[in-house]
Amino acid sequence: MKMIIGKDVEEMSQVAAGYVMSYMYQDRERVNLSITGGTTPQRMYEILVPMVKDKKQFQHVHFYNFDEIPYRKEDREGVTISGLRDAFFTPAHIKEEQIHKLDQFNYQTQDERIEKDGGLDMVILGVGADGHFCGNLPQTTKFGDLTTRVENDQRLKARILPEFHNVEEDVPEYYITMGPRSIMRARHIVMIASGVKKAGIIKTLLEQVVDQDVPASILTLHPHFTLIVDEEAASLL
Amino acid sequence: MKMIIGKDVEEMSQVAAGYVMSYMYQDRERVNLSITGGTTPQRMYEILVPMVKDKKQFQHVHFYNFDEIPYRKEDREGVTISGLRDAFFTPAHIKEEQIHKLDQFNYQTQDERIEKDGGLDMVILGVGADGHFCGNLPQTTKFGDLTTRVENDQRLKARILPEFHNVEEDVPEYYITMGPRSIMRARHIVMIASGVKKAGIIKTLLEQVVDQDVPASILTLHPHFTLIVDEEAASLL
Amino acid sequence: MKMIIGKDVEEMSQVAAGYVMSYMYQDRERVNLSITGGTTPQRMYEILVPMVKDKKQFQHVHFYNFDEIPYRKEDREGVTISGLRDAFFTPAHIKEEQIHKLDQFNYQTQDERIEKDGGLDMVILGVGADGHFCGNLPQTTKFGDLTTRVENDQRLKARILPEFHNVEEDVPEYYITMGPRSIMRARHIVMIASGVKKAGIIKTLLEQVVDQDVPASILTLHPHFTLIVDEEAASLL
Amino acid sequence: MKMIIGKDVEEMSQVAAGYVMSYMYQDRERVNLSITGGTTPQRMYEILVPMVKDKKQFQHVHFYNFDEIPYRKEDREGVTISGLRDAFFTPAHIKEEQIHKLDQFNYQTQDERIEKDGGLDMVILGVGADGHFCGNLPQTTKFGDLTTRVENDQRLKARILPEFHNVEEDVPEYYITMGPRSIMRARHIVMIASGVKKAGIIKTLLEQVVDQDVPASILTLHPHFTLIVDEEAASLL
Repeated sequence: MKMIIGKDVEEMSQVAAGYVMSYMYQDRERVNLSITGGTTPQRMYEILVPMVKDKKQFQHVHFYNFDEIPYRKEDREGVTISGLRDAFFTPAHIKEEQIHKLDQFNYQTQDERIEKDGGLDMVILGVGADGHFCGNLPQTTKFGDLTTRVENDQRLKARILPEFHNVEEDVPEYYITMGPRSIMRARHIVMIASGVKKAGIIKTLLEQVVDQDVPASILTLHPHFTLIVDEEAASLL
Repeated sequence: MKMIIGKDVEEMSQVAAGYVMSYMYQDRERVNLSITGGTTPQRMYEILVPMVKDKKQFQHVHFYNFDEIPYRKEDREGVTISGLRDAFFTPAHIKEEQIHKLDQFNYQTQDERIEKDGGLDMVILGVGADGHFCGNLPQTTKFGDLTTRVENDQRLKARILPEFHNVEEDVPEYYITMGPRSIMRARHIVMIASGVKKAGIIKTLLEQVVDQDVPASILTLHPHFTLIVDEEAASLL
Repeated sequence: MKMIIGKDVEEMSQVAAGYVMSYMYQDRERVNLSITGGTTPQRMYEILVPMVKDKKQFQHVHFYNFDEIPYRKEDREGVTISGLRDAFFTPAHIKEEQIHKLDQFNYQTQDERIEKDGGLDMVILGVGADGHFCGNLPQTTKFGDLTTRVENDQRLKARILPEFHNVEEDVPEYYITMGPRSIMRARHIVMIASGVKKAGIIKTLLEQVVDQDVPASILTLHPHFTLIVDEEAASLL
Repeated sequence: MKMIIGKDVEEMSQVAAGYVMSYMYQDRERVNLSITGGTTPQRMYEILVPMVKDKKQFQHVHFYNFDEIPYRKEDREGVTISGLRDAFFTPAHIKEEQIHKLDQFNYQTQDERIEKDGGLDMVILGVGADGHFCGNLPQTTKFGDLTTRVENDQRLKARILPEFHNVEEDVPEYYITMGPRSIMRARHIVMIASGVKKAGIIKTLLEQVVDQDVPASILTLHPHFTLIVDEEAASLL
């Protein structure tokens, strides 16, 4: 495990963008990256967009989302892919054939499709204050799980309500996530965290306890795991 | 994860020897391998010895034992390193500077020494019918542990008694093992298993449940894990 | 450059077989090897056959010949691929879909097909006393050439006559070879040489002069070049 | 070989900076880069400086100059290292222990020191309109040469005079350069070129002729060679 501490969100985001770019620049036939939505990476995507937009040398880079919360009516794309489009794919002019959507219709073949594509070279993901990563919340998936569908109980529905601008009728009965086993198959896992509200979980992750109730603790066992945080997130170390 | 099924111990051992040789032949400055003692690899070492003995091209290959059971009197080398010397190092004429002993005196710096040496390129290990690997027996270490000293209770003492030819006064109060976290840091983990008495644990490992009571289940989450078994060990799949 | 000196043909062949096996054991989606015909590797293939025959774990390994001398009547496969079948593919039960023939009909797409297949991971080749490698004889191809057709003048016809058991009417007007540029694209080049008649060229190659009249001298500039010789071939060093 | 065409110097420099950063971000024990002075990379260094300055995560990156023109009096550092300090090392706060100077006093051990340090991961270099790279001008070094000292005749003295602000008494009798053989040992060679005055040599390099009178033509035989140019330099393709 390697840890990098940037002094603020800006510096953390620049380092994270640097890691993403370092994979995009690799001269291989194909590079497969799984990237995260949410608020933590917003600045990272702002840095990446002008570096990537309309650059022909990145056409061998393929992108995969690792979770999805569908709208209940299934009349449009889900929350994760929509967020990734807004923050990155659309402004960076990523071509549709480089975007590999995970959704409620194809999740059962996600792991096998990724394997056939050559495996993930890198996944960049955030961590929740409760220790979740991707859609692996405490008491939902287990360490051994591959990509799976998680049924939403009342607690989970309440939790994802803000993702739907508090429109309850949009909240679905379930969501999709790559499991811990799926993510551990990537060749490199990069975790980003910023802000004082992540200081507790970062401290926990570094205490070397691996516990299914803190899902992200499993990632610390990956042989190529990089943690990029800002000083606030590192403030309890 | 990749699984290879040989038809018998001979074929399993040849495949395992092939993996070891493939690392020894890598033209890098230094190759670090952690190799297993015990009965499962005996035939593998017999195959390796004539391929390695006195060959100058393998002087960049370094060997590490991953556990050790000291003699109570500490008047000689422990059980693991002695077994490795008998089966491999001595007949293959491996030089002393290529052998990196883990023992009761240096275990607290094992993880840091390996990191400084560039990390383990490959570890080849067996699995117990109870799911143990290295000295990680059920109810001894936890998934998050690095190299550690395990105190022997009566159960453990009884268990290792045969390693000491049933001489009770040789059985020590503790043993040393690299922990699950240490082993997961290797770039490649190769597990070998043969015989019908391993069929149950092999079946369990493939059921995708990761459970601290089955220590080896964690290894199935490593991104580069290879399982080499014979047909008997695969007979319940 | 790395040089390994075995004490005789047997030891040289075992080392060479070890290198081939080390690639076959790599756990990647696909491994592409270009292998040599001729007399130098005969013992190497004898060692490889029992290690490879009917082993399911090697189905991701693909083989490419790097030159071909067709029969003049074109009524059967050429000299190189026939020799590789006899020495290796047939006794080792290599499947036809793993064999990628270069011949007079497809040589113009050889470089592009190899690139599309992911490039050559390793090419193992011999060297002539005159410094030729593959079909790159002095005064035939240039360092910058890709796969090409070489017209046979009287000198060349006389030279390849023994390959046709001295039946002149079988000797073709031309032959096919991957050029120096094609071979330099491989990720690893392994050269084997044995016997006192190769001592002169081995000495020349190590003198650090790169000269188009000694075609193999270009290979010494490859960043991953391994030379495996026996003591006789090394006797002038 | 891979070629990337940026629309202008700015875009070429951003791509080149991206490649340099992609190596600096690699999580390995040590990364060794050989970087170029001169005018072509000036904008690249301007982009790099703020990305690198005071960043602790880059302390495992080591820099090597590949040529040096000493001052005749040897009373100060030579032209190349001085230029690299001004453009990059000093503003980016690279520590002295990360800078590995090649000069007239140590050039005879340059190749061996680099090998001992683990070899060069990447060299980024420019190309002259006459086909020179590093100090390998036509009629100075040969393809087979390692790091060497080149004696300056009148032609060479006239040529380097501008590097000394036209002060003739500063012009030395010789200069130092890593040879073609030294540079070909790097794991990745990146060449940058911009402007219409480089259009001719870029066209020549792509014509697949390898000729000692066009020293850079040898680099096109490297298995991992990347050419980054702007549209003017590509205007004759």
